[in-house]
Amino acid sequence: MEIGFIGLGSMGYPMAENLLKAGHALAIWNRSREKGEGLASQGARQAGRPADAVSADGVAITMVADDAALESVVLGPDGILEKLGPGGVHVSMSTISPALSARLAELHRARGSHYVAAPVFGRPDAAAAKMLFVLCAGPAAACERVRPALEAMGQKVFPLGEEPVHANIIKLGGNFMIMSVIEAMAEAMTLGEKHGVPREKTMEVLTQSIFPAPLFVNYGKQIAAHAYRPARFKLSLGLKDANLVLGAAARAQVPMPLAALMQGRYLAAVAKGRADLDWTAAALNVAEDAGLDPGDGH
Amino acid sequence: MEIGFIGLGSMGYPMAENLLKAGHALAIWNRSREKGEGLASQGARQAGRPADAVSADGVAITMVADDAALESVVLGPDGILEKLGPGGVHVSMSTISPALSARLAELHRARGSHYVAAPVFGRPDAAAAKMLFVLCAGPAAACERVRPALEAMGQKVFPLGEEPVHANIIKLGGNFMIMSVIEAMAEAMTLGEKHGVPREKTMEVLTQSIFPAPLFVNYGKQIAAHAYRPARFKLSLGLKDANLVLGAAARAQVPMPLAALMQGRYLAAVAKGRADLDWTAAALNVAEDAGLDPGDGH
Repeated sequence: MEIGFIGLGSMGYPMAENLLKAGHALAIWNRSREKGEGLASQGARQAGRPADAVSADGVAITMVADDAALESVVLGPDGILEKLGPGGVHVSMSTISPALSARLAELHRARGSHYVAAPVFGRPDAAAAKMLFVLCAGPAAACERVRPALEAMGQKVFPLGEEPVHANIIKLGGNFMIMSVIEAMAEAMTLGEKHGVPREKTMEVLTQSIFPAPLFVNYGKQIAAHAYRPARFKLSLGLKDANLVLGAAARAQVPMPLAALMQGRYLAAVAKGRADLDWTAAALNVAEDAGLDPGDGH
Repeated sequence: MEIGFIGLGSMGYPMAENLLKAGHALAIWNRSREKGEGLASQGARQAGRPADAVSADGVAITMVADDAALESVVLGPDGILEKLGPGGVHVSMSTISPALSARLAELHRARGSHYVAAPVFGRPDAAAAKMLFVLCAGPAAACERVRPALEAMGQKVFPLGEEPVHANIIKLGGNFMIMSVIEAMAEAMTLGEKHGVPREKTMEVLTQSIFPAPLFVNYGKQIAAHAYRPARFKLSLGLKDANLVLGAAARAQVPMPLAALMQGRYLAAVAKGRADLDWTAAALNVAEDAGLDPGDGH
């Protein structure tokens, strides 16, 4: 049976391509149809509207930019919700608010379809290399049914129980921790720089000792060199995620001063015209606050 | 020639023991003499005062609690500064202020002796297992002379040039980054907890995906379980280091809002009577702010 794949952006496209490579039949839909041409030439069927990409009792995967885009492709007049019907499964892989996730789970439940939250860790290059980490929470039978598809898109799938929101919360927690690490690295490097220690040297020592993880090595290099183009994950998306974290924190009454600090950093960066740089460019705030000129007209 | 080793606390003792095991002759001094008895039984010579542990033109290693303790054993009436004399090397391994490091470097230089800053990453168990990461900055010939001793105490030595302060700054930057990670993990886990995600589950997913470093695994386990006894690194020392970071930041004019946040966290934890818990207990602030009772009367 065809899988419906909605959203062919920088993440969705390579994910869908890996599904095709693994032998899954795909129907695809994207707001701008031309984004799907490469996949169509590999055998995917282009649908005219989201609902036409999915079949009753089928599986629909969504990977779109934000809450509004997801509401549109699910709940809008051409949306998938009514089409899926009893037995259908909606695998929601976008980074969205836990509130919307809970709402969609309820709407699906009322129609006899199933909602699975399956957000991912990894940037577009990881998606292309099938190296994503995929979280998965939802009704057990639905998770089991879509597991082969999830495994075709990532290196590891984490089963996280029956409650979709749990996957969204862990995803937001992870993105929040990355933001925090960006700020921490930026402050440590700037402290070093103003004491005469080259930024690269600070990160070299720390990544070869207490922080050997690839994330520190890769993000550290970008921040050390102030190399924020091209964006691997846009700063505007970092702000979106910071807002999602604070929204989830407000709903559950969890004061998160570090998350609030990071929301301010991303807001400042967007205000300074940096929405399209990589989200590590939040480090520029630290350098500028210290009176440094990071150069090259960011 | 004997190496003089000053300071036999939870770090200094196992470090000195590893020097003995590697075949170095040691003279030792500690404020409370009985701390040295175990080493004396292994052949170390107990000195009556710091100056008596070192010989003119010799090598002295200091590993003490803070700036005041170091000033006392170096500059005090029984201190090592005047004894070392031309050609002597002072290897200063404590976590101290860059300001004191610069001052001691200058005082040694004026006497023809050499000051090497060699702070370490690692807790007492890492010191015992010879798994410390040792930073090293100072005059090249002096660093070269003491390298075998440093290698006998750690798994890796990072040569960081001629300026001692650079090693201190990178060390403080690393400790600051650990503090930041503690706060980030605590906020992410508490966000999860109040949405129904077990604290352990949040860390399990994150450490098996984007944060696979041992530091995240080990600290994450402590924070998830609110297990802060016994202290592997005392919270009071975390506050000390936060103060050192902010002092260094003030001297160099580097606004560090995340460091300031952490200083507040450690100050609050000490104010609540938690100075002797492990420094990961800063996570209790996050849980308490969210209205949770972390239990067991911390």
